[in-house]
Amino acid sequence: MKNLVGACVFGQSGGPTSVINSSAAGVFLEALNQKNITKVYGAAHGIKGILEENLYVINEESKEELELLKYTPSSALGSVRYRLKNVGDDETDYKRILEVFKKYNIRYFFYNGGNDSMDTCNKVSKYLLKSGYDCNIIGVPKTIDNDLYGTDHCPGYGSAAKYIATTLMELNLDATVYDKGQITIVEIMGRNAGWLTAASQLASYKGLGPDLVYLPEKAFDIDKFLIDVKKVADENNGKCIVALSEGIKTKDGEYVTEALVNNANLSKDSFGHAQLGGVAAVLAELVKEKIGGKVRAIEFSLMQRCGAHLASKVDVEEAFNAGKYAVKYACEGYTDKMVVFKRAEGDKYDISYELMDIELAANTEKKVPQEWIKPDNTGLTQEFVDYALPLIQGDCKATLVDGLPRFAKLKKVKVSK
Amino acid sequence: MKNLVGACVFGQSGGPTSVINSSAAGVFLEALNQKNITKVYGAAHGIKGILEENLYVINEESKEELELLKYTPSSALGSVRYRLKNVGDDETDYKRILEVFKKYNIRYFFYNGGNDSMDTCNKVSKYLLKSGYDCNIIGVPKTIDNDLYGTDHCPGYGSAAKYIATTLMELNLDATVYDKGQITIVEIMGRNAGWLTAASQLASYKGLGPDLVYLPEKAFDIDKFLIDVKKVADENNGKCIVALSEGIKTKDGEYVTEALVNNANLSKDSFGHAQLGGVAAVLAELVKEKIGGKVRAIEFSLMQRCGAHLASKVDVEEAFNAGKYAVKYACEGYTDKMVVFKRAEGDKYDISYELMDIELAANTEKKVPQEWIKPDNTGLTQEFVDYALPLIQGDCKATLVDGLPRFAKLKKVKVSK
Repeated sequence: MKNLVGACVFGQSGGPTSVINSSAAGVFLEALNQKNITKVYGAAHGIKGILEENLYVINEESKEELELLKYTPSSALGSVRYRLKNVGDDETDYKRILEVFKKYNIRYFFYNGGNDSMDTCNKVSKYLLKSGYDCNIIGVPKTIDNDLYGTDHCPGYGSAAKYIATTLMELNLDATVYDKGQITIVEIMGRNAGWLTAASQLASYKGLGPDLVYLPEKAFDIDKFLIDVKKVADENNGKCIVALSEGIKTKDGEYVTEALVNNANLSKDSFGHAQLGGVAAVLAELVKEKIGGKVRAIEFSLMQRCGAHLASKVDVEEAFNAGKYAVKYACEGYTDKMVVFKRAEGDKYDISYELMDIELAANTEKKVPQEWIKPDNTGLTQEFVDYALPLIQGDCKATLVDGLPRFAKLKKVKVSK
Repeated sequence: MKNLVGACVFGQSGGPTSVINSSAAGVFLEALNQKNITKVYGAAHGIKGILEENLYVINEESKEELELLKYTPSSALGSVRYRLKNVGDDETDYKRILEVFKKYNIRYFFYNGGNDSMDTCNKVSKYLLKSGYDCNIIGVPKTIDNDLYGTDHCPGYGSAAKYIATTLMELNLDATVYDKGQITIVEIMGRNAGWLTAASQLASYKGLGPDLVYLPEKAFDIDKFLIDVKKVADENNGKCIVALSEGIKTKDGEYVTEALVNNANLSKDSFGHAQLGGVAAVLAELVKEKIGGKVRAIEFSLMQRCGAHLASKVDVEEAFNAGKYAVKYACEGYTDKMVVFKRAEGDKYDISYELMDIELAANTEKKVPQEWIKPDNTGLTQEFVDYALPLIQGDCKATLVDGLPRFAKLKKVKVSK
């Protein structure tokens, strides 16, 4: 543990969320207050900005705009999807990072992202340690997917979950206005972990949730799906609302879209029509063919991850604190760690911000526990609701100017190389 | 003009909106206060509820729940798409309506909907007049499409416009996070009138709008579209955001989807893939083929019409007042009219609630004026922004309970037939 004096750099990585900039606000506002941090840089497009020496001088930004970052969705500095090679295979990038860090006397590095970003963070950390270059490195978790290991939940998830649950309630009211119901199939993000789709179940808690929920954590049985849908529709005057993850797979591990064509459950023609619309569109075609009636596929698309107008206050505050604590811990001398959320035992929701070895977070996926999925695979149990409900509490969004959000506008003054 | 004493019935018709229930709240709360109105009924599924004598006794509802209706999206009474035949062709429905009105002594009829619903209202009104049955009938305008003749704008439009503009701003931030931009094509509702798509231009007012906007009011030129998109993408590092109406047509009056296959601009295969995804999906395929790069189609689907969590306060209040004034005017003896919004001259936005002969509203569509569309057909002029911006002001949504909206729950006590 070393107390270092020097500059810090912060980068954003991976897909945007409603609150990734809340963490940026936490990092920047805390770093500007720390006397050991002599200069605050933001990397343009994550690790790529470091490699290319595209750094913004955050000291040049007004405090007001940095505070507005808290309520501004997406990645204000720009994001990146870039995986560092193993140092044994190719040392080029690592040498370059070290060179840039030395040039700007960067002694603190904060990186905000999901599994892959924590892998980057871990690799850089190990390399610098080996090189004898002192730099405290802390990962800040971020992912709407909520699949990071070692933390109760991830910043970004609560707001996406709130968007999904609220929108499901509204869709439920919309889908039931005519005297003959319709079958609505909603596709939600999540290739391997079903946390986002599970959030639709929070709407059920209000009596306006989906009738059926399918996660990638359980094998998707196409025949059972048709039976499930028909049963609900028959009992509800034709109405059935299904929420499912984009990543649902059959018991053979095939994506449902592939499986439908391979097993000829769906005519080639209908399949062709629907293929590019995603799994909801394909299943809507199947339901039309096999059950009939009015069927609609809906994709929440990018709206679910950038819908900051529906951000959860709990999520915004926690994301901010995750950034703030990353800086505090680094200034206390910690390195090679990721900030994790620890939930207090007992009924009252309370979170503390702790540290975990970053290599534990890198490349591990946390999935929805099997015991939280109902035995008949049609929804989630009360345990899931108890877990997720505290994460969507409170409203927190940008001030309106002329009826529209006032998002942060950074000056983005670049360093002269 | 007759001051009548008797019961009233209110029905909701056509596609749901975020504020159709705000008008219901206005009608019910005002009607319950009027001494000439002896009983207040709500028709289940509009005119069908009257024909089938499925009427809810609104006097049985609590005032608290009726007030919550103001912030509850979709049609609480249930909606319908049902056109009455011309009385000369078939009098059956009209006779039945008169029979039900007599049975329950209904002397006030309020009907909430768009063009088709005003046609229903008009036909019933003329029939009852001819039959010598006294009943004051007032139409309450409603449509997210904003295409009703004779009113400055329509309840429902402001909230949908706010959803569209806000979401476009968020998508814009989301679509620009990586160093290489993507082409995003957003499909917005509107078969014949482009008011909703035009609302995306309000986001441009904040610097975060679409780069290109196409409405059904102007012929869509597929070749020019490709040139427009390529130009924007080339100038913006690959980024281009397009907002377009589902109803855009070529100069020959063909829907763009049809035209693309007929004129073989798009390979059959790609077309087949995209066809069911709507026009944005088809054009995304075309852009992929002809321009390349990362292209994403997004449909706002039902979310744009039922996203009450993003309702405009101005819209909610005006929708409520439209209902309230309908009752007031009817009780003053007016009949065969629709409530219209009149905007005051001058800079300050101010609306008065007036009446217009209902037959003027029936079956006429009001489109976006040609002079509000930029000459190069890539967006809207400042005149449109000046028109639409006042309509999206203010926030107004249901109270949160456990982080999710508390919508109205009506008891729906039915009359005994």
